Amino acid sequence: MNDSSPTSRADFVVFRTMPTRWMDNDVYGHVNNVVYYSWFDTAVNGYLLETTGTDIRLLPALGVVAETGCRYLRSVSFPDLLDIGIAVEKLGRSSIVYRLGVFTAGEESAAALGRFVHVYVDAATRRSTAVPQVIRDAVTPLLREFR
Amino acid sequence: MNDSSPTSRADFVVFRTMPTRWMDNDVYGHVNNVVYYSWFDTAVNGYLLETTGTDIRLLPALGVVAETGCRYLRSVSFPDLLDIGIAVEKLGRSSIVYRLGVFTAGEESAAALGRFVHVYVDAATRRSTAVPQVIRDAVTPLLREFR
Amino acid sequence: MNDSSPTSRADFVVFRTMPTRWMDNDVYGHVNNVVYYSWFDTAVNGYLLETTGTDIRLLPALGVVAETGCRYLRSVSFPDLLDIGIAVEKLGRSSIVYRLGVFTAGEESAAALGRFVHVYVDAATRRSTAVPQVIRDAVTPLLREFR
Amino acid sequence: MNDSSPTSRADFVVFRTMPTRWMDNDVYGHVNNVVYYSWFDTAVNGYLLETTGTDIRLLPALGVVAETGCRYLRSVSFPDLLDIGIAVEKLGRSSIVYRLGVFTAGEESAAALGRFVHVYVDAATRRSTAVPQVIRDAVTPLLREFR
Repeated sequence: MNDSSPTSRADFVVFRTMPTRWMDNDVYGHVNNVVYYSWFDTAVNGYLLETTGTDIRLLPALGVVAETGCRYLRSVSFPDLLDIGIAVEKLGRSSIVYRLGVFTAGEESAAALGRFVHVYVDAATRRSTAVPQVIRDAVTPLLREFR
Repeated sequence: MNDSSPTSRADFVVFRTMPTRWMDNDVYGHVNNVVYYSWFDTAVNGYLLETTGTDIRLLPALGVVAETGCRYLRSVSFPDLLDIGIAVEKLGRSSIVYRLGVFTAGEESAAALGRFVHVYVDAATRRSTAVPQVIRDAVTPLLREFR
Repeated sequence: MNDSSPTSRADFVVFRTMPTRWMDNDVYGHVNNVVYYSWFDTAVNGYLLETTGTDIRLLPALGVVAETGCRYLRSVSFPDLLDIGIAVEKLGRSSIVYRLGVFTAGEESAAALGRFVHVYVDAATRRSTAVPQVIRDAVTPLLREFR
Repeated sequence: MNDSSPTSRADFVVFRTMPTRWMDNDVYGHVNNVVYYSWFDTAVNGYLLETTGTDIRLLPALGVVAETGCRYLRSVSFPDLLDIGIAVEKLGRSSIVYRLGVFTAGEESAAALGRFVHVYVDAATRRSTAVPQVIRDAVTPLLREFR
């Protein structure tokens, strides 16, 4: 994540509503750094489940999380209602690199920026395999140029 | 929680929408028993924050959780969108006993039933104190008879 | 949970060490009420895995959590290193009622008391079934009279 | 995180024991990607609390998490008992870049590699400030060269 990272709502393609939970807040009164990642995999998998109309957990190829990252730009707190923006930076043969943005209501610039990499493996052998077509179709509209 | 426990939507007064998160699911593919409690304190505190229009974390009296409980009747799973029903069984001088119900979309009967007890303490001395009037006003409409 | 509840180390049979985590603490600087339940199912399942020498998740009968509860007597905080005491109140044909105690280092009296009920179901049909013998053997030494 | 990333126990300076919890496992039977970050901030803050002998949450300068990242190399599962290795890649005027490694018992190579960046801010004004001397002293022995 560098200077060309996406940072505004315009950089993302779809948005998922994400309410915060009371226990997301830590001792400093802000959402703990760990919790952001639960929004990321909820947003990505929720989008895939909904858009494919398929229970992706039962496909012959599974998306295994290979890498994640987050930059925290402004704190957020329960009871904020968030929008999680999703875009796809790279759609490879067997992997997908997602970009995520955490937005509070009415704010154009992201409070946090995430990166989330799925690598597809055969559900039985766990060997690397191609991204299933149904997933490929779902994420193609999310592709964006970054840099 | 016994045979007279509330079990249908009609037994609750207000409902809070609660989306599940991907990581709420455990190894058996259903939401883990622990997670229900994060819905309960989010529902109660979210209701209090919203209804009082006050940041209840800054009041001179704080609600400390003294007891919680849950009966699990039917499993729920991500990506279920839940309604958390809230009612108040007892509004005492210094404590409030909440009843909670977990409902999936379109279901009249609860998938789980919760109990959540707040005891109010002075924020400085941590000694038992009266439920603040602003909280009392917010929860009075939630009172229900449960034998 | 009433006046005859177990409350001291002597009321429990085995103890599992449980370190707290930074994010267990909530905005008030104490462990959030939800987190205690993650210690309970970790303690019970960890004990069962270790004592049976079996991956209990692969048995033909699975323990489904039917009911849980907790009374919070004194707060605990990260970085406390806890001992979770376990005893069995009732070993039925198809269910087990566990009692749990949360103890901080050097304290004889519990900071919190838990209740945790497993009901065994056939892994395939999800119908109620007998507690597997390997589990029965593991929990029999934990039986204690309460009241 | 690139080819010169630390990957073996020898690349880390101190290790913190970290038991997994039952609910850390997700639907695929492995620890969910989110949970690793709870180990990272527990390891770093636990080390700082212990080594400084100070409640770092009460210092006039607080470490705010500015960036985190993780590469997942091999899955881990409850009930694995983990060692979290810690090293410091950069000790700046107002920031510290930690490297973390997740190791299962008896394994020399990491199951996951983390990055965790603390930026110090004045507890009152939230403006950037110098790393407190007591923290600086605690992390200096953790410094390692990572090209």
